[in-house]
Amino acid sequence: MAKFITIGERLSTTAPAVNKAFLERDPEPILKRAKQQLDAGATYLDVNIGPAESYGEDLMKWAVQLLQSEFDNVPLALDTSNKAAIEAGISVYNRSKGKPIVNSADAAGRIENIDLAAANDAIVIALCNGEGIAKDNDERMGYCQMLLERGMEHGMEAEDMWFDPLFLVIKGMQDKQMQVLEAIKMFSDMGLNTTGGLSNNSNGMPKHIRPIMDSAMVAMAMMCGLTSAIVNPNDLRLMETIKSCDIIKNNTLYADSYLEI
Amino acid sequence: MAKFITIGERLSTTAPAVNKAFLERDPEPILKRAKQQLDAGATYLDVNIGPAESYGEDLMKWAVQLLQSEFDNVPLALDTSNKAAIEAGISVYNRSKGKPIVNSADAAGRIENIDLAAANDAIVIALCNGEGIAKDNDERMGYCQMLLERGMEHGMEAEDMWFDPLFLVIKGMQDKQMQVLEAIKMFSDMGLNTTGGLSNNSNGMPKHIRPIMDSAMVAMAMMCGLTSAIVNPNDLRLMETIKSCDIIKNNTLYADSYLEI
Repeated sequence: MAKFITIGERLSTTAPAVNKAFLERDPEPILKRAKQQLDAGATYLDVNIGPAESYGEDLMKWAVQLLQSEFDNVPLALDTSNKAAIEAGISVYNRSKGKPIVNSADAAGRIENIDLAAANDAIVIALCNGEGIAKDNDERMGYCQMLLERGMEHGMEAEDMWFDPLFLVIKGMQDKQMQVLEAIKMFSDMGLNTTGGLSNNSNGMPKHIRPIMDSAMVAMAMMCGLTSAIVNPNDLRLMETIKSCDIIKNNTLYADSYLEI
Repeated sequence: MAKFITIGERLSTTAPAVNKAFLERDPEPILKRAKQQLDAGATYLDVNIGPAESYGEDLMKWAVQLLQSEFDNVPLALDTSNKAAIEAGISVYNRSKGKPIVNSADAAGRIENIDLAAANDAIVIALCNGEGIAKDNDERMGYCQMLLERGMEHGMEAEDMWFDPLFLVIKGMQDKQMQVLEAIKMFSDMGLNTTGGLSNNSNGMPKHIRPIMDSAMVAMAMMCGLTSAIVNPNDLRLMETIKSCDIIKNNTLYADSYLEI
């Protein structure tokens, strides 16, 4: 089995400092957060520029070139609802360290992002959601099939489609958590790659609890076969847990120094 | 589903201070360690008096009465290879907070401990091992069947047999870890209760790593259906992880204060 892939989530317009830096094309805050995430062991970096309707193409190009030139062609997830901006980003993207990830398609209004990924030989995060949250795993698996078929029709390799069951918030949907984990197990049993915004589960919890809950969740999800996640790689407890689960799964060879790598 | 059961492992002759206190019938060190474990949330306390061949009956009675009188009939696991000592302990045991646990039977020389548990209406930890470590899950499941049938023949309830797959040391048997977890899943799918000496997995690792690895392991095992474990309840990270997995599994209701209970 391959080592678990982490996609660092901290370059996002939801963080005011990042939003400002994107708008002002100010490299320093962007590079600082990128370095923190890479130093902590992130495999991919997510570049979430928000909707960025009028200036998205220019901004995504700038961000991709900035990050890849500074960090040896670090692989990136291009995260925006602006399709033209994703394509612009891919047009300047260097693939030497990994294909770009299109973040994301779903089984409703964003299904065409599957086609976009296929046309650009990119990986796509395929969110198993329709207009709303899937009500059960029958619905989730239906969306999975729909997305998979769309990818196949457009000539994608199944391994480039990373299925996201959508992690649900425990505060409000506690009784749905095992269902989400079982969906990951079903995707995994189909041989599919999987991902998700892990920390959704701990949304609204006291700040000191979130790394504890997220760590428990990632270990349970890795037991179910989760192959990657969108995470805060600067959450030390979470990264320690991921590395430990990789040891237990025999994805990486144990050494007393395994946490330091 | 029921809340995960922890069996505190710190009252053991393998700890020199405990061994000395047992030999001298000195209550203070025993009660101190018992209180630490109960304050940290242990459900059961394991009382490991070692082989104790000549004085085991007297010692086990003393320990059971000491602990149950001080801590409101705290439920106990009676842990020794001396069968007469287990029976002596049970003879003075108060069941108001739970049946005694016989720790343990196996599918080889200790299979008669199943009969002992049956005759005394006790819970038994049924180690799925023969003379040596099971070489694969076929063998493990064979031992499970053998132990289960022995219990049924003697009139035990299946729920009073807690099957232990034997956690294996990662340093040396890294490639067997998923097999152990899959065994837990198989026991769970059969509707059986399960337990095990969790920290075996991290034996020989640097001290600071063990709580990290044990926490990853317990979360993966709880995903597989593990219902209890023999643990150090004073490992804060481990107990936080167990409580978080109980939330994810909907075994306990989420509250912002769930870690403090």
